[in-house]
Amino acid sequence: MPSAIILIADGTEEMEFTIAYDTLVRAGIKVTSAFVDDGSSGMKSTGAVHAAKGSRGINIVPDIYFESALTDPISYDLLVVPGGAKGADTMSKHLGVQELVKKYLDAGKYVGMICAGILAALSAGLPNQPLTSHPSVRSQLEKDFDYKEDPVVVSGHLVTSRGPGTAFPFALTLIELLCGKDQRNEVQRPMVFPPDTPW
Amino acid sequence: MPSAIILIADGTEEMEFTIAYDTLVRAGIKVTSAFVDDGSSGMKSTGAVHAAKGSRGINIVPDIYFESALTDPISYDLLVVPGGAKGADTMSKHLGVQELVKKYLDAGKYVGMICAGILAALSAGLPNQPLTSHPSVRSQLEKDFDYKEDPVVVSGHLVTSRGPGTAFPFALTLIELLCGKDQRNEVQRPMVFPPDTPW
Repeated sequence: MPSAIILIADGTEEMEFTIAYDTLVRAGIKVTSAFVDDGSSGMKSTGAVHAAKGSRGINIVPDIYFESALTDPISYDLLVVPGGAKGADTMSKHLGVQELVKKYLDAGKYVGMICAGILAALSAGLPNQPLTSHPSVRSQLEKDFDYKEDPVVVSGHLVTSRGPGTAFPFALTLIELLCGKDQRNEVQRPMVFPPDTPW
Repeated sequence: MPSAIILIADGTEEMEFTIAYDTLVRAGIKVTSAFVDDGSSGMKSTGAVHAAKGSRGINIVPDIYFESALTDPISYDLLVVPGGAKGADTMSKHLGVQELVKKYLDAGKYVGMICAGILAALSAGLPNQPLTSHPSVRSQLEKDFDYKEDPVVVSGHLVTSRGPGTAFPFALTLIELLCGKDQRNEVQRPMVFPPDTPW
């Protein structure tokens, strides 16, 4: 069974997080969410359970804390970095996240980034390659990367996407890469997308 | 500012819940999630905070408990009943939920139901009218209702939809009904749906 780790922080876009997590689970992928601390939660010192407060106020309890993921950093097949301005800021500035992004790609594992989460490609110093992002962070990326406007861009093992509106094709593309086209179709059918949906 | 109450239970489909909640918040609607207890959480007796465990394992902390919503049952402009087989079963069998659905419609307020959440239309004894649902619960509904296969069906103040794949047009339709077409467009644009998306 393939496995995935999805990062979450205060300010994460909860639709992007939830669509990725839930859709991957539907494909039989074992998914773990890992909380990235911006240093303000007091979580580390108290050890208390901390729910991540999403960008629109939904409180989600993470499965593990990010530090736990670092003990065996490439034990998953896929790393996902969601958007949400504040959450993506925390993640992209976090040295451990930058390191994990590079380690996953160096090990030939998939890394998915969506929306403002693509800022982690910049902060991790990834080489110039095709990618996309939410339009609001485009100007920060287009000098260093071959910027595209496609809903989902696959560049080797780096998969990028634009926002909540592309989160379904983003998640389904990750399933196709990890589990094959048949599994993607199997997951997609019972989700009942309207006729003529372009993915 | 319009307001909405969205129900959540153990087994709620977390994408349907999150897409409705987040998208309505983007429109400036004040959203409150209310936990419907199936009697197994021990929550009532201990008063402890209980995170709802979604159908694919995401733990979401509700804003309030459903019983609190009953003290002033029609204080919101919209009631949303999400799907997820187990969560929808809990909600549709809950006498307080059945009562609230009827009270909202009787008061000329909107009620949105999606996926298996439509079973609450049956258990609340709503009159025969056009509606849709997830295909998996169609057989339970088509004897008593004018069953449709459209992604979103608006019947007076009852708005129904099919599954995770229709959750975005469902939420955007609710925004249009509560806040107007301009506000819907305002919310939809920065979500970056792919070109040719049919909503």
